[in-house]
Amino acid sequence: MLTIAVDAMGGDNAPECVVEGTIQTLREAENRFEILLIGQEEKVQPLLNRHDTSDLNLRFTHAPEVITMDDVPATAVKTKQNSSLVRGLLLCKENKADGFVSAGNTGAQMAASLFVLGRIPGVHRPAIAAYFPRLAPGLTNVVDVGANVDCKPEHLAQFAEMLTIYQHNAAGMEKPLTGLLNIGEEENKGPDLLKQTHKLLQEADRKNKINFIGNIEGNDILSSRASIIVCDGLVGNTLLKFGESIPHFLSTIFKPSLQKLVAAGELDPKAAELAGNAFRAMFEPFDVEKFGGVPFLGIDGISIVGHGHSSAKAIMNMIFMAEHMIEKQVNLHIAEALAGN
Amino acid sequence: MLTIAVDAMGGDNAPECVVEGTIQTLREAENRFEILLIGQEEKVQPLLNRHDTSDLNLRFTHAPEVITMDDVPATAVKTKQNSSLVRGLLLCKENKADGFVSAGNTGAQMAASLFVLGRIPGVHRPAIAAYFPRLAPGLTNVVDVGANVDCKPEHLAQFAEMLTIYQHNAAGMEKPLTGLLNIGEEENKGPDLLKQTHKLLQEADRKNKINFIGNIEGNDILSSRASIIVCDGLVGNTLLKFGESIPHFLSTIFKPSLQKLVAAGELDPKAAELAGNAFRAMFEPFDVEKFGGVPFLGIDGISIVGHGHSSAKAIMNMIFMAEHMIEKQVNLHIAEALAGN
Repeated sequence: MLTIAVDAMGGDNAPECVVEGTIQTLREAENRFEILLIGQEEKVQPLLNRHDTSDLNLRFTHAPEVITMDDVPATAVKTKQNSSLVRGLLLCKENKADGFVSAGNTGAQMAASLFVLGRIPGVHRPAIAAYFPRLAPGLTNVVDVGANVDCKPEHLAQFAEMLTIYQHNAAGMEKPLTGLLNIGEEENKGPDLLKQTHKLLQEADRKNKINFIGNIEGNDILSSRASIIVCDGLVGNTLLKFGESIPHFLSTIFKPSLQKLVAAGELDPKAAELAGNAFRAMFEPFDVEKFGGVPFLGIDGISIVGHGHSSAKAIMNMIFMAEHMIEKQVNLHIAEALAGN
Repeated sequence: MLTIAVDAMGGDNAPECVVEGTIQTLREAENRFEILLIGQEEKVQPLLNRHDTSDLNLRFTHAPEVITMDDVPATAVKTKQNSSLVRGLLLCKENKADGFVSAGNTGAQMAASLFVLGRIPGVHRPAIAAYFPRLAPGLTNVVDVGANVDCKPEHLAQFAEMLTIYQHNAAGMEKPLTGLLNIGEEENKGPDLLKQTHKLLQEADRKNKINFIGNIEGNDILSSRASIIVCDGLVGNTLLKFGESIPHFLSTIFKPSLQKLVAAGELDPKAAELAGNAFRAMFEPFDVEKFGGVPFLGIDGISIVGHGHSSAKAIMNMIFMAEHMIEKQVNLHIAEALAGN
């Protein structure tokens, strides 16, 4: 039976939401795997005591330290060896767990994953591939979204290769299409980095490692033209955070204008409520909770990171993602593909 | 009296919208300046003939060639010397016009502006600063949005300096704040380019050339924290195009859901119309037409470029922007500031 380690202390809503999500997951999964919850006993145990968990495949392990959102990643990993984050990854390293899930400090989790689990042989740099909204069936993953800056062409090309394997094996996508995010569609466009990367992606396409459709631009991200969008972490991180700020920005305009119409007697309160619901539902494609989190591609182990705001539902989906990646042997496929390079 | 040259052939809606916008501008401005319309006589003259322009300060000059949206900038500028674009800029060079306005091929206009008008002494690279939405009073300009890739730290720092002068002089902003778009707020974050740029911006701030607030992230763009947002053209261009694609993306979700509510008899058609209007109005901050276009900062002359989709209203606002930049002597202020460096 698989064991998945879960960081009870990770995220803005921890440990409450993590405990909640863990219990929900085991009930929904009907105990088909075991969860090892890691965190500060004095904070987690009282929450666990509120539930009857005697029928669940749930174990708890105390970790006295906590890496917070404000901790500097490299320092925290060294100075807080007894944190739930480092302990959880060590359990994976010691084969006491098959995967690890946290909604905590992303930078610290990447640093600790690299430090404790290392890279899959052949991987230049592990990367983070975030989910972006799309309307058509399938997925859109942008890689990298912040783990790597100052990327070299071979880094970007390898991100595409790893993500192709991930989408193919973990998401069952037959032929995921890769686009290179650039300033124009012509292959001679953009900075030197991307001109060189373009050549490497063409080469990877010829070797059937990826399916490359060429350069794409900012307005193609939401259009579903590509399911894999490759860029440096600076570009991807900026886009991700810009995109995340849009629902709030727009609602601060839309909501008052509906309220104004109601106050003026032009719009029925019930109609305004329906319109407001349609407005909120519009951002459903922006909801990353359905995926829960994102894996660190290239790490020699399963380490899934979630948004700091993760809810119980997001935690559940992250745990299922870990289970799925283990079962589909995504890392083994990556190792085999890179060994063949 | 000022003379502003206008490219009748630039943009997807040319020459119709350009002729329309030109006539509206002169009526609104009550002939306080002269407009010199440049384009293919056989296409423009019939449009002009539909109006009585005898009372307007309007002249027309024939240019047999047209640079299209698909033309490769560097090539087009060399091979189409008799295009409205190149001719218009030559008129500025020969002091027969005080400024030039086009909604055509941005790359070609930048290349031609550089070739014909050159740079203000001391300018490393001219840049394009696009307007981004904001809710608070003031402006948000992101620089650069596509004229420059592979920027060096001194390029980015100079963009901030030029844009500070532009916002101060052309937009009357007392103390425009500059943010450096990066992957984190700490000054040691991000790629080497931005670490070096951060130092130069701090230095420029100490010399009172700019007002630097430090690094900002993607979620700060719409928050009005900074009015000047500095980044490489690859990042700015990607953000601009991504942002432009959002209204359409969201409306393809929102509109059908309102229609569904109406079809189900849950929402009154009149209420749906009001909600639809509020939805459209929500994107008003995304409407770049109110600015019309953007100037090429650092070009030794006034060259304003508009969106390819520009309407008559956008053309009008571009012409007013040209007039304003000439009157406020923005380029003179830039030249003086750089001479003092």
